[in-house]
This record gives sequence, structure tokens and C-alpha cells, in this order.
Amino acid sequence: MVLINGKSADTVSVSDRGLQYGDGVFETIAYRDGVPEFLEQHLTRLLNGCQSLHINFGQIDFLRAELEDVFKAISSESAVIKITVTRGMGSRGYFSDNSAIPTRIIATYSYPIYPENYQSGGVTLRFCEQTLSVNRRLAGIKHLNRLEQVLARNEWSDPAIAEGVMSDDEGSVIEGTMSNIFVVADNVLVTPLISQAGIAGVIRAQIIQIATRSGITVEERALSREQLAQAAEVFVCNSIIGVWPVTRITTTIYSVGFITQFIQKSLSELKK
Amino acid sequence: MVLINGKSADTVSVSDRGLQYGDGVFETIAYRDGVPEFLEQHLTRLLNGCQSLHINFGQIDFLRAELEDVFKAISSESAVIKITVTRGMGSRGYFSDNSAIPTRIIATYSYPIYPENYQSGGVTLRFCEQTLSVNRRLAGIKHLNRLEQVLARNEWSDPAIAEGVMSDDEGSVIEGTMSNIFVVADNVLVTPLISQAGIAGVIRAQIIQIATRSGITVEERALSREQLAQAAEVFVCNSIIGVWPVTRITTTIYSVGFITQFIQKSLSELKK
Repeated sequence: MVLINGKSADTVSVSDRGLQYGDGVFETIAYRDGVPEFLEQHLTRLLNGCQSLHINFGQIDFLRAELEDVFKAISSESAVIKITVTRGMGSRGYFSDNSAIPTRIIATYSYPIYPENYQSGGVTLRFCEQTLSVNRRLAGIKHLNRLEQVLARNEWSDPAIAEGVMSDDEGSVIEGTMSNIFVVADNVLVTPLISQAGIAGVIRAQIIQIATRSGITVEERALSREQLAQAAEVFVCNSIIGVWPVTRITTTIYSVGFITQFIQKSLSELKK
Repeated sequence: MVLINGKSADTVSVSDRGLQYGDGVFETIAYRDGVPEFLEQHLTRLLNGCQSLHINFGQIDFLRAELEDVFKAISSESAVIKITVTRGMGSRGYFSDNSAIPTRIIATYSYPIYPENYQSGGVTLRFCEQTLSVNRRLAGIKHLNRLEQVLARNEWSDPAIAEGVMSDDEGSVIEGTMSNIFVVADNVLVTPLISQAGIAGVIRAQIIQIATRSGITVEERALSREQLAQAAEVFVCNSIIGVWPVTRITTTIYSVGFITQFIQKSLSELKK
């Protein structure tokens, strides 16, 4: 099911700046057992992203109403809901006089099926060669310029590798191609800063809150590959996968640790 | 006029990876007096871009035939032809098994009308705050991830400013929002390296060739704002504007110089 500006449709104009320049933002929301998980957090990030990019998105009430229609129409227990907002249609050229009405797209997808043991037994990661470029202005925003992630994710097709680790040009670990990354070292939960590169994940923010509330020290700071290798626990997270413990990155082996399991459990409870 | 995969159409699928991730490349070609200028150079760059992004674009013969149809259909003396090639439609997620057939879009636009004295009398530039991020893998490619240019170009709306200068994070001048930049200093023609950021412009390459053939020393190297301020001549170029002498950047004034005029003249002759 796809709604474009409230109407059932499956195409957008060639003139849409989303296609022309990747000029927009998106959100990927887990819909499970009738509940769109962390919906408010996703909508807040969507609006923040629009504001950062100076996209005058004044159609949030329409979007909310359309989302309700989409929720009602979902017949399966779970689904993925992707919301895209672009700056709208435009003539040729980068300049926009902002008279365009942003395009809002709501699309539903079937929930991906990952091996069951990913959640409990953990996953294998690799390091990607494709780097994430540094741009303070764009860092954190879930915008539509995703070529780096596309190139990184297409470096491997081995289904035994669940995710790839992306670093910036200086070798600092930033995130996975589709996930944020956390490590536990000396009982401190560490996740890379996303002030220069990377996406401010909704689940990442939830995990930081959960840990802080539970008395676990959380540090957002630079993370080197060496520190990643020496960590006691590693996990990756996003809205769809939740939390996957990492048990292997190339030749480094990790156990599924206590803090990872605690975060998994707390996150599940929060969703209820 | 818009042809999508050879058919007259004006929409693309919501599932197109061009829209989803900016996963594609584009070319903007000047069509003047019945001639698509530097067509082969544009098509070569398009193919190189696809190859760099691992887009299996095997439809070049179709594209050429469709371009011929488009040329025939153009009734005005001049037009802008934009070719876009995306990785094609895909399911959700960054991974692509490359079974998708790339989407090819040919769209024509009316030729933009710039003030007549831009060519002879020169233009005013500003410095953009939005930086260009460094990514060796993506540098040079005219891909669809253009948020940086969008944000830079939307920093000003004053029609007296024709273009904005973009720098990387370290302050090195790279290019304009829609153009490449050249300076003349000590009779050497200097243009920034585009191995880390920036687009390998078709006209940029033509100018380097013209200058080299004419015995003008050309250097592709880092260019600081100070060096830009101290230059004897400055000009910007792209396929649509040709060469615009720069006579002012913020408070720095330049004359329209001899080498700039020589390049303009040589480029015009080359097009004939």
C-alpha cells in the first residue's frame, strides 16, 4: 500500500526533488501487533530533519491522519511503514523558492524475516571499505542521500554476514550500514558520536535513555576499531531489527553479554 | 518532454532507488542550434559514473536512440537535456542484487535566460557556509546525492549573486554549487583537485584540454580562499552557462582577464 499526498498511488513526478537530488528525509517504522513502535519519536525526527533541511513541511496533521488510515488497512500482524517527505516538485536547478508543497509518501512493506537466532545467538559483522563522509550540517539527519550506505551494503552478498561496520575517513567507527552500534567496555556503554557523520537512530536514543535510567554509564564518543575489537560486548540496533548481539566481526569473537540482554529485554518492555 | 525507459511519461515508481536513496547519476547537456554540445563526453561520464557505482547500465544503445528522438522533437533553438540513470526499482533496503534494470530518464527543459552581461561583464559570487564532504569513492561522480549543493544554493536568493563558492571542511575551495571554478595566478591556470570532493565537469575537462593545447600551464591542486582572493582572474563554468568571468567575490574585485576571454573564445569555437 502506498499513499502519496493522501492518495493511493505508486509513482511520483520526475520533477520531484527527492528523485532529482535526494532532497528529503525518511523514517522506517516497525508496526507490530497493531502498534506503530516509537511513532512519536519517528515523527519528531522527521520534523526535525525537515527543519534542518529548511523543508517547510506543514502537512503533519495530514500525515498523521493518513498514517491512521494506513494502520487500519494493515491486515498482517506486523509490517514496515516507510514515510518519505521530499521538498516537493521543482524546476531544474538546486535553488528552491520553497513555494513547492513537500511530497509525503507512506509505503507499507512486509516485515523482513531474519534468522531467529539473530536476536538470541547474535550476528556476524564485517568492516566496510566505503567510508562515511563527515558533514556536521547533515550528520544525524535521516535524509535521502544514501549512496554511501548503498555502496557499503553492496560490498558483500554472503548471507552469513548480517551487517557491515562503517567508519569515517579517519578510521573512527560510526555505525552499521542500516544500524547504530554500541559496545560495552569496562561496564560502560559506548556508542559513537554522530555529530559529524551517521544517523541519529530512534532506537539508539531509546537505548541511551534505558541505560541512563538503569544506572548504566553511557558515553557518546569516538570509537576506534581497536576499541571495538577489545570490547566485552557489541550490539547493533535499528527500528526493525531491534537489538542484535554481535558475536563476530571478521576474526574477533564476542559473547552475548549481560548488558546487551538487559537492553534487549528493556526495549521489548518499553514497546508493550 | 520526458522519456522514461523510452516511453513518454512523467512519473517514476516510488520504489525507484533514485528516489529512495539518490542511487543514480545524471548529466545536463546544452542543446544549441540543433547540436547537443559535448554529447559524447557527457555519455562517457554517465557510463563511468554507473561503473563507479556498480550500476549495470547496459541500455546505452537504447539511450542513444531515445536521445535522437528527443533531439528531433525539440522545436526551439536551444534546450537543456537532462539524462538521469538510476539503479532501477528495488525492494526496501540498501542491498541490491543488481537484477534491477536501471531506469533511464531523458527530460528537456527550456534554456535558462541569464543576464546577457554575465558572459562579457562577469558575475558576482559569494562563499557558501555549507561545505562539501570529502569522499574519495564518490568524488568526481555526478551522482544524485546533491543535498550539499541544494543547501548551499539555498543560502541566498539575491539575484545579483550568480553563484556560490563551496569549500571542503578544511577550507579548500572545491567548486561552485553548479559549476567548476578556475583561477589565473602568475599566468598559470589553476583549478581545484576533485579527487576528494567535487564533480568532474565536462566543461572543466574541455578547458583543461584547451589550455594545455594552447601552451597555458594548468595545475590541478588545492586552492585556498586566500589564493582565490589574490588571483588575477577567476571564472566559473558548466555545460549550460559556458564560462562566466568572475568580477567580484564578496569584497574582492577582479577584472575580466585575457586568459578567461581566450578560454571563452576557444570553447565557443570548439562547440562549432
